[in-house]
Amino acid sequence: NHIIVTGFGTSGSEAVHELLARGVDPREIVVVDPDEKALIQAEDLGCNVMCGDSTRDRTLKDVAVHRARTLIVSAGRDDTSILITLTARHLAPRLPISIVVRNEDNELPARQAGATTVINPVSFAGLLLAGSTSGPHIADYMADLAATGGQVRLHERCVMPEEVGGPLSAIRTGLGVRIYRGTQVIGFWEPGAAQLQSGDMIIEIVAGVEHDGPHNPA
Amino acid sequence: NHIIVTGFGTSGSEAVHELLARGVDPREIVVVDPDEKALIQAEDLGCNVMCGDSTRDRTLKDVAVHRARTLIVSAGRDDTSILITLTARHLAPRLPISIVVRNEDNELPARQAGATTVINPVSFAGLLLAGSTSGPHIADYMADLAATGGQVRLHERCVMPEEVGGPLSAIRTGLGVRIYRGTQVIGFWEPGAAQLQSGDMIIEIVAGVEHDGPHNPA
Ligand SMILES: [Ca+2]
Ligand SMILES: [Ca+2]
Repeated sequence: NHIIVTGFGTSGSEAVHELLARGVDPREIVVVDPDEKALIQAEDLGCNVMCGDSTRDRTLKDVAVHRARTLIVSAGRDDTSILITLTARHLAPRLPISIVVRNEDNELPARQAGATTVINPVSFAGLLLAGSTSGPHIADYMADLAATGGQVRLHERCVMPEEVGGPLSAIRTGLGVRIYRGTQVIGFWEPGAAQLQSGDMIIEIVAGVEHDGPHNPA
Repeated sequence: NHIIVTGFGTSGSEAVHELLARGVDPREIVVVDPDEKALIQAEDLGCNVMCGDSTRDRTLKDVAVHRARTLIVSAGRDDTSILITLTARHLAPRLPISIVVRNEDNELPARQAGATTVINPVSFAGLLLAGSTSGPHIADYMADLAATGGQVRLHERCVMPEEVGGPLSAIRTGLGVRIYRGTQVIGFWEPGAAQLQSGDMIIEIVAGVEHDGPHNPA
């Protein structure tokens, strides 16, 4: 039930720092990189490390990819990252895999290779730049939503039994913004949000990092 | 009242594409780059272009930086981008300037140079990667919020006269998530959100791109 991070370049190391900020025990993280120098930094953070080529079955088997909770792929080159994803998907059919790609053309192949989450930093930066022209606070709010620090964060959880039957707007743990119901994606304004169902996944905005209980609405 | 984009590399061109998707007229965009090849692509999109070095006063004066609505700085190198920001800030004290930096250490200098919005794609990718380990839909929701396409987008606007005195939760244009009131930042759960004041800036989540009027709550 560990987290594997393959590629400890800029994105990979940022991800590990944020995982630690979120309270993940560094001993639950295994960093794999072909570069021993990168691994020294990961080791300094308390992570487990392995020097190796994650495009090889053997490497991923050595870090028990089939028993991992999640895999983060940030090898620095899209071709390498996609090959790692394919290899890992073959060995662990149900593993959540998040991959960083740098070229927009590689987003679809990354999904086809089996990635569950595809992140394109360049494309994201373009969106945020464009958004900043219509409001000076939008990029800051997005960064706050994404990071565990600051005043808010985005959170995903299952619906709780006592919430079933009520509207999304009545949840007490945060501000409900979206429901995933089977293959449906339901916005806060849509009829489907009027009645939560058992099995719904809720995306909510919650206040602060320490905030796990109900908040006190103003 | 034009938008200047200096540096038409990956981030800059993504920003221009997103601006066009948001309905900005390409003739309102001026792209500046020292590389003529990059400018051909910008010209193909219908943008105005100028070949030049934006770290020079003369270049920024030639594109009337003091009359611009906003400046997007994505020169590809942090030192170049920060020098452009300093130069532009000197020529246009009140201009909104959004800058892309690649190194976390340069976020603070970029603000000190006068940038109003600092975007670090690598750091953002790390946040999204870490977030994806606690929920498979969080990165997708963030990308939807940032882009004008998809089902929702983040929007910033002034409070409307008829909203003053009411709570943030009562606004009808979207789901209110944050208020900027002078130097204060007020979350949806905080006492200050119970009564909107004249001059408040509101951050809201709105449904769809076409959605400018009131939504019909479920
Ligand atoms: Ca935050
Ligand atoms: Ca969107």
